Amino acid sequence: MGASLKHFTSFEEMITAARSHGPKRCVVACAEDYATLEAFSQAQNNGIAKGVLYGSGQRITTICGSLKVDVNQFEIHDTTSARDAITEAVKDVARNGDFLMKGQVDTAVFLHGVLDESLGLRGERVLSHVAILELPRYFKMLAITDGGINTKLDLRRKVDIVKNAVELARFLGNEKPKVALLSAVERIKLNIAETLDWAIITRMGEEGDFGDAVIEGPLALDIAFSPEAAKIKEVTSRVTGDVDILVVPTMATGNILAKGLQYLGGAKACGIIIGARKPIVMLSRADTAETKLYSLVLGNLAS
Amino acid sequence: MGASLKHFTSFEEMITAARSHGPKRCVVACAEDYATLEAFSQAQNNGIAKGVLYGSGQRITTICGSLKVDVNQFEIHDTTSARDAITEAVKDVARNGDFLMKGQVDTAVFLHGVLDESLGLRGERVLSHVAILELPRYFKMLAITDGGINTKLDLRRKVDIVKNAVELARFLGNEKPKVALLSAVERIKLNIAETLDWAIITRMGEEGDFGDAVIEGPLALDIAFSPEAAKIKEVTSRVTGDVDILVVPTMATGNILAKGLQYLGGAKACGIIIGARKPIVMLSRADTAETKLYSLVLGNLAS
Repeated sequence: MGASLKHFTSFEEMITAARSHGPKRCVVACAEDYATLEAFSQAQNNGIAKGVLYGSGQRITTICGSLKVDVNQFEIHDTTSARDAITEAVKDVARNGDFLMKGQVDTAVFLHGVLDESLGLRGERVLSHVAILELPRYFKMLAITDGGINTKLDLRRKVDIVKNAVELARFLGNEKPKVALLSAVERIKLNIAETLDWAIITRMGEEGDFGDAVIEGPLALDIAFSPEAAKIKEVTSRVTGDVDILVVPTMATGNILAKGLQYLGGAKACGIIIGARKPIVMLSRADTAETKLYSLVLGNLAS
Repeated sequence: MGASLKHFTSFEEMITAARSHGPKRCVVACAEDYATLEAFSQAQNNGIAKGVLYGSGQRITTICGSLKVDVNQFEIHDTTSARDAITEAVKDVARNGDFLMKGQVDTAVFLHGVLDESLGLRGERVLSHVAILELPRYFKMLAITDGGINTKLDLRRKVDIVKNAVELARFLGNEKPKVALLSAVERIKLNIAETLDWAIITRMGEEGDFGDAVIEGPLALDIAFSPEAAKIKEVTSRVTGDVDILVVPTMATGNILAKGLQYLGGAKACGIIIGARKPIVMLSRADTAETKLYSLVLGNLAS
């Protein structure tokens, strides 16, 4: 921590800030994975993370060899099964690590370990995914949550998702994040379920439940970003044109919006899972090298 | 009809095609509205639509005067109430019109008239909204449905939404549209409801229920647009990188995605309501002049 910038405006700025933190201790579960080790090697060369790898020492060595990555730069803990690797990695990161990273293992199995209370990583909130985007047409980084973890949402989960994202924004140096709770409409509609939840969460925000933050919803996306649209629709908003965090009503919405901006809107993007006692990086095989590095940068800054 | 282009690549091309059709007979309900008459005047000057206005003749004349729009270019039917204006406009468009347009009247009241079977406009399908986008980073126009009408979806509504969009694509000259049924994932997941509906609709597509079209889902958005992502994730797709229509799992998703691409991704956009016997244009006050004109162009081409 310690970013003094109020708002990051690019991933370049975030890389610079992560470098100034120095390398964080990143614990990798099931590290015998090409994409993970390649991304990790880049992050290590950039002084962003120091790798503590749990997995098959032999396979890690072989993969590093074929990637021409120096295996001696890593702290390697040889384990005999995926389950062991996860258990030991989770215990390690809970005690001594800065953030956790998923290697070559089924996501459900990995998360089972993360959520195992006896291992010490699980906190009191639900886990949630936050995507961070650098957009060609917006003046600062934008967070979108949750497009990755919670297939079903209820009010309690939505509250935790907002809490998690506000906390992440603070770690990124933003002391009073502005949050838009998105719907298709900007008024409470009794037949649109999320507008009722957003009304409740907006009230909770006014009562101080999320600390120093501006929380507003339901808002349609045009109101969130266009003061002009807000004026025409006669909506008074404290976040319009200056939003830091978009909270979406369903996982599909967040996933499709973030990917839409990435694949059709020229955004650069990465993501992280928060809500446990330490942040968690999970890369997708289809992520670009750029996205993989940014995710590790985010792990550094969020820890 | 009669667009010979397989794919429109810009609104400019669509304007040119609409002009070549000649003006269509557009019936406006409750036309005593500044935004509507201003947009309409532009469309009329461009040879895209001929206005048949139902509403208070006196107010229409006053508004045209203050907009410096020649009121004599319109066919005006003086009515004494909003209800009358809607009833007469809907009957007129059902019999003799090309498309319908909503003026200054509550959306629910307007749609009540549209859906009144005795007036002859309602068809057998549900109404749905299609947004059409011109994106700086995609090689052709992209349709997103339904982000505007159906607050709750069931399988039957989803089927109608796909049918409506495929039919619209054909009106726009695309004989074999490629449809991506979007989710956060590209596999059937028993705990993600829309993936089950998309699997059924994909099978219906294979059985020919949507005519000559390629329908595929569930697909994550990266698979829909990136052949590279499809390859890495080992998904074989006949639509990847060449999608014409995105079908979303909830109204909020479509609304937020279309507005996201418009306000954050540099897209130009407009929308139309289909599923009745004639297409319907409903403008929002916050629409730009550009969007309003494009919507009327779409009304011309879709009728």
